[in-house]
Amino acid sequence: MNTKVAVYRKEHFNAAHRLHNPGWDDATNAKVFGKCNNPNYHGHNYELIVKLIGEPNSETGYVMDLKILSDIIQENIIQKFDHKNLNEDTLEFKNLIPSAENIAIVIYNILKEKINPALELQIRLYETERNFVEYPVN
Amino acid sequence: MNTKVAVYRKEHFNAAHRLHNPGWDDATNAKVFGKCNNPNYHGHNYELIVKLIGEPNSETGYVMDLKILSDIIQENIIQKFDHKNLNEDTLEFKNLIPSAENIAIVIYNILKEKINPALELQIRLYETERNFVEYPVN
Amino acid sequence: MNTKVAVYRKEHFNAAHRLHNPGWDDATNAKVFGKCNNPNYHGHNYELIVKLIGEPNSETGYVMDLKILSDIIQENIIQKFDHKNLNEDTLEFKNLIPSAENIAIVIYNILKEKINPALELQIRLYETERNFVEYPVN
Amino acid sequence: MNTKVAVYRKEHFNAAHRLHNPGWDDATNAKVFGKCNNPNYHGHNYELIVKLIGEPNSETGYVMDLKILSDIIQENIIQKFDHKNLNEDTLEFKNLIPSAENIAIVIYNILKEKINPALELQIRLYETERNFVEYPVN
Amino acid sequence: MNTKVAVYRKEHFNAAHRLHNPGWDDATNAKVFGKCNNPNYHGHNYELIVKLIGEPNSETGYVMDLKILSDIIQENIIQKFDHKNLNEDTLEFKNLIPSAENIAIVIYNILKEKINPALELQIRLYETERNFVEYPVN
Amino acid sequence: MNTKVAVYRKEHFNAAHRLHNPGWDDATNAKVFGKCNNPNYHGHNYELIVKLIGEPNSETGYVMDLKILSDIIQENIIQKFDHKNLNEDTLEFKNLIPSAENIAIVIYNILKEKINPALELQIRLYETERNFVEYPVN
Repeated sequence: MNTKVAVYRKEHFNAAHRLHNPGWDDATNAKVFGKCNNPNYHGHNYELIVKLIGEPNSETGYVMDLKILSDIIQENIIQKFDHKNLNEDTLEFKNLIPSAENIAIVIYNILKEKINPALELQIRLYETERNFVEYPVN
Repeated sequence: MNTKVAVYRKEHFNAAHRLHNPGWDDATNAKVFGKCNNPNYHGHNYELIVKLIGEPNSETGYVMDLKILSDIIQENIIQKFDHKNLNEDTLEFKNLIPSAENIAIVIYNILKEKINPALELQIRLYETERNFVEYPVN
Repeated sequence: MNTKVAVYRKEHFNAAHRLHNPGWDDATNAKVFGKCNNPNYHGHNYELIVKLIGEPNSETGYVMDLKILSDIIQENIIQKFDHKNLNEDTLEFKNLIPSAENIAIVIYNILKEKINPALELQIRLYETERNFVEYPVN
Repeated sequence: MNTKVAVYRKEHFNAAHRLHNPGWDDATNAKVFGKCNNPNYHGHNYELIVKLIGEPNSETGYVMDLKILSDIIQENIIQKFDHKNLNEDTLEFKNLIPSAENIAIVIYNILKEKINPALELQIRLYETERNFVEYPVN
Repeated sequence: MNTKVAVYRKEHFNAAHRLHNPGWDDATNAKVFGKCNNPNYHGHNYELIVKLIGEPNSETGYVMDLKILSDIIQENIIQKFDHKNLNEDTLEFKNLIPSAENIAIVIYNILKEKINPALELQIRLYETERNFVEYPVN
Repeated sequence: MNTKVAVYRKEHFNAAHRLHNPGWDDATNAKVFGKCNNPNYHGHNYELIVKLIGEPNSETGYVMDLKILSDIIQENIIQKFDHKNLNEDTLEFKNLIPSAENIAIVIYNILKEKINPALELQIRLYETERNFVEYPVN
């Protein structure tokens, strides 16, 4: 067996969003997205769990210092999305539907650039306690 | 000792909102409300706990059938606020700042009309896991 | 201000029950209690929170040793109700509908006899995460 | 890397059950299953998490509309098991011990028939907060 | 009815402690405090909930800005106790047993000086999910 | 598909610890470990989830009796670490930094000897609700 360990850090942000496909007419959007298509937006308390897999460093016992990971998430994700309207206030979702799936993929792609590439990265995002997603899938 | 029992029912809704006082200029609003003043709104998963105090009925063992209480909350609160923009989509917050405090008071006033007046009513509202309010205070 | 402190201990038990009033016919029972009247029972993971109010002892800093409180709850409540059918296996609910309200009152009356009468006692009982009760009400 | 995303939906049901092997005598059943063998049943609040893995649809951003998934779970699982005695009221457990493991396998087999076969399905079932299972294992 | 609202803010800190009465011999300490008397300390993730009761301000909708309350708790409580040994590293518990009851009273007394005296203050402190306390009691 | 099921059991313990590398000087330890290097220790409520994968036994429906698993965890892990100072009171961490990663590896190695080798074992350890680890990684 290898000696890899997975480490997890949980953060959160509060945002408004709306599910809407601009290529469709309003009736189709309302039919497909239901309440989530509300023109004036609704919102969520998003819970974000970042998972990293790697070998613990023998001198620190850490795969990665989770305080540093928390700072990276704060600077690159929370400051960008917290207390924002994902559709209106962010470049990432100007042309991308902010479904939980797409938000997770966007977060993955942002963090991938900021974290040691030797560490395997996975994102779990809770839109509500009952609806959540994970990316990528191994 | 009296034989009163408190019963609680928990429901939830997801909504967008913005804290903004139209009587102030933008700089004052930004200073007072910070991120919560974001012009394009942000949002929350609100957890609502409705408490009723009364004597259990000797034939049912119930203070109130919580299935009926749940239906009353669904019809009068959840359908009104869920997947809505509180500032834009609701009459209640057209001229009232949708702070957690004010949302709790509004919910109390709506439910008070719908529930047996012999039962004492109290609202607890979680805006996030870390910020919550209760009204009225005994 | 007095120097009283409230202390809380949480325990749990799993039990089957059925809401049924033997003084009514089956149709009335089904109408009033709905799914909770299922003849072959259903069940719950009950979460029990016992609250005591008193002055901390100056030599221990304790209102009451919560390990001792836990033992009292285990011996008098958990052993009696855990993995039992409340209607069939317990004397307390032979002639009393095991609604959450009544279970809380029964637990209060049992524990009241076992705990220092100088301490004020209150019971909170979660039947589910969304339905819970409290007794007595101050 | 592929672009698959896992999506999760959480639902719950309350049921009574009893662990009992009819091929054994009572003493053996009592010895093996302990409190879980109580003849008059006990019960649980089961928390069910359904996981699906697939590619998000480019037009909706959804792997699957979780509202539709919720409806499928409600119709095929919750209506069948909620407020029921698993041993007495369901065909699935007439001849199968309703251990958490077996309940998860039964739920998997029912949902597998109802969900797009292109999506990989996994079930997690919480019998209590401290005891839970997952099926299948990848 | 008055129009007072209770607002709550939750924070946390991690600390080591030991329950030990220096006026007793070791055998008595071990007998009374059991595992909590371990000479080399043990520790907890303390969850702290601060409750304030007051009238919402008509211009902000706030009883108190919870961001400011959070800052006050951080500066006066979290910086003092987080990642500390309560017995060894803090003046407050040099001569006071750091039971949950006493920690709650100490936190109350510190915060009372820092918060608008027109607001009624109450502390809830979770030592574990199963053991918690509240001070003062109304 | 194989018919393996994963079963999980959650337990907890409260312990003090300190992150400190004796091969470094104090300034380096303080720089690397920050608050976690506090000389007098701090502590946590550790939540431990033990996962086993195997085939359910056809006569019991169990992969393993979780009551027996709980007893094994209690005897081999909880009695060893609960209400202890990991650095001072345990052999395992005399010469090993008690990071969450290392604690999980130590727990895995202890339990591996006590559990049927036909069952695949994995450890998840929560140091706080926001920081947790998993070992091994498949």
